Amino acid sequence: MSTVGKTITCKAAVAWEAGKPLSLETIEVAPPKAHEVRIQIHFTGICHTDAYTLSGKDPEGAFPIVLGHEGAGIVESVGEGVTNVRPGDHVVALYTPECRECKFCKSGKTNLCGKIRATQGKGVMPDGTSRFTCKGKPLLHFMGTSTFSQYTVVADISVVTIRPDAAMDKTCLLGCGITTGYGAAVVTAKVEKGSSVAVFGCGCVGLSVIQGAIKQGAGRIIAIDTNDGKEKWARNFGATEFVNPMKIDKPIQDYLVEITDGGLDYTFDCTGNVQVMRAALEACHKGWGESIVIGVAAAGQEISTRPFQLVTGRVWKGCAFGGIKGRSQLPNLVDDYLEGKLKVDEFITDRLNFDKINKGFELMKDGDCIRAVVNMRDDVDYN
Amino acid sequence: MSTVGKTITCKAAVAWEAGKPLSLETIEVAPPKAHEVRIQIHFTGICHTDAYTLSGKDPEGAFPIVLGHEGAGIVESVGEGVTNVRPGDHVVALYTPECRECKFCKSGKTNLCGKIRATQGKGVMPDGTSRFTCKGKPLLHFMGTSTFSQYTVVADISVVTIRPDAAMDKTCLLGCGITTGYGAAVVTAKVEKGSSVAVFGCGCVGLSVIQGAIKQGAGRIIAIDTNDGKEKWARNFGATEFVNPMKIDKPIQDYLVEITDGGLDYTFDCTGNVQVMRAALEACHKGWGESIVIGVAAAGQEISTRPFQLVTGRVWKGCAFGGIKGRSQLPNLVDDYLEGKLKVDEFITDRLNFDKINKGFELMKDGDCIRAVVNMRDDVDYN
Repeated sequence: MSTVGKTITCKAAVAWEAGKPLSLETIEVAPPKAHEVRIQIHFTGICHTDAYTLSGKDPEGAFPIVLGHEGAGIVESVGEGVTNVRPGDHVVALYTPECRECKFCKSGKTNLCGKIRATQGKGVMPDGTSRFTCKGKPLLHFMGTSTFSQYTVVADISVVTIRPDAAMDKTCLLGCGITTGYGAAVVTAKVEKGSSVAVFGCGCVGLSVIQGAIKQGAGRIIAIDTNDGKEKWARNFGATEFVNPMKIDKPIQDYLVEITDGGLDYTFDCTGNVQVMRAALEACHKGWGESIVIGVAAAGQEISTRPFQLVTGRVWKGCAFGGIKGRSQLPNLVDDYLEGKLKVDEFITDRLNFDKINKGFELMKDGDCIRAVVNMRDDVDYN
Repeated sequence: MSTVGKTITCKAAVAWEAGKPLSLETIEVAPPKAHEVRIQIHFTGICHTDAYTLSGKDPEGAFPIVLGHEGAGIVESVGEGVTNVRPGDHVVALYTPECRECKFCKSGKTNLCGKIRATQGKGVMPDGTSRFTCKGKPLLHFMGTSTFSQYTVVADISVVTIRPDAAMDKTCLLGCGITTGYGAAVVTAKVEKGSSVAVFGCGCVGLSVIQGAIKQGAGRIIAIDTNDGKEKWARNFGATEFVNPMKIDKPIQDYLVEITDGGLDYTFDCTGNVQVMRAALEACHKGWGESIVIGVAAAGQEISTRPFQLVTGRVWKGCAFGGIKGRSQLPNLVDDYLEGKLKVDEFITDRLNFDKINKGFELMKDGDCIRAVVNMRDDVDYN
């Protein structure tokens, strides 16, 4: 029996309040309105941003909410006026939408689309309302995606169709971490052949930066992490060196400037730690070194440095979602994946059925977990 | 009688100690050694960096020293191996040298030459010694130029020959302020046609940024200064708007973001004030705005912002000497000046004979002085 046009009842992991585990609930998902798409989520990743919001440390975080922003699934139905995806399409949800109409999209200079920014930030659909209810209460949407639900509704500009031959337990990871790091190296920094690169933090994003640097032909790739267990990961992805900053007797930036004869051509912060962001900038080579901030810092935290660092030619920049335009560029990344040019499977350290999603949050705090992928379907056992 | 190969006795303004006026002294200037050039300085500008070092606030400032770094003159003699200039050449001294051999010069990415950086920073010639003595004591060199002397000795990579038909009381100003601002807009930021620009601080450097922005075809140029007297200056150089941040009821960055529908494409700090540097960054448009730090901050001061400013696409960079390579590019600026494409005369608000040089430092503290030019020759009366 078709579900089109009807409210769907399904399971979702609801964050009722900050600092508490997610609660598996039966929720109602209303049909998509005009320019909206309802997706059956098959797989979702768990990312630090989900954990950050759940922790309550994000002052803009509101509850109750359906978290999750790294999801892949199949379009169940579309609202009026939707032309970019069709029911049955395999898709990845995009927390960075791409409307192709706003001044950001048309600038050719950024992937940050402005069209639904205000409502997305408030946790509602573009018309100002929610499609989720549970026990009679509306639930907020998260990052325009809310992939911790078996069904979700997103704006049509927040979804991209991908090849059906790409496994969704892999492509879901292109919805955030992998694309963010890879794009930062390839699109934002445009790392040059033979250049030197330092990557601070060797989680999913950092390892993806290393992949991007390899793709661009970087000559020397120094991976930095306080967890020695990350060395094998970093080297597997292509790092030529590994440094544990706890095991050297000077500030990491001084050490890096020393061993690179003046500093690096490109550095990347994948930690969200503002002290690390500073070190990453100051590890850059005078005259041309560029440091890219990728990590998301805790609310209210600030980065600092002496302006002399900039006056002597270093560049401090950053990006979200790697600078990648989701609708235009994500399909290319899927092609690269299927052609063996982009590692994705290698990131998955843990696989969980939906009812174990809270375990995924626990695993993430553990340094050995790179990405936990959650199977959202009841009819498929992922364990 | 030729002075070649001999020590020259002449007048210089000596800074014996921090916080005291300069002292006009008779000094001895030794002949140039290999790869050095002795210049008869005809005119010098006075710049805030001279005042900063004289004040004693620069922790690297050392005394006694011959200050001055904005000078034009005629080559008196050259040491062994000098091929780029000849006696009789009209020249401008370059505090940012250009050796064309070091990795900086060869990178194609920066104007910061590394060849004599260490000795220049210590106030000595590349061989580690000084060419100046006064009352039996050696005097330090300043910024590799020391233009507050009737004769100075510089490294051959620290000087460029310019057309003799360009008046030296004008070309001296290309040795720092004008080139710094103009280059920041044209070379470092590469301001694009039709783009919006905000310039913080309307002294010589800020006005030169405005000139550069006009040259690049900027559409909207907002000049910002706490001195209302600068409005006419800014508009004369091409600013389309003027804002006094003391006269608005909100932080200047909020005001600018508001009146520009999201912020500026390019902003420039020409104040050296770290709070202004922050405002300049935060006044940039999300997604692509670039802020260029030009001003030199006081020792130990730091710039700060929330990393979110960078993650959402703003770029923080800086430059010294505008990113201009002195030997390669300064002659083009002189051509532009003589062809009427680059304003220089307009910057000169005050003209002083050498014996009044301390008055120039007083005038600089006064908001109505843009540039004071000092006539270094005894045989020409400039007043």
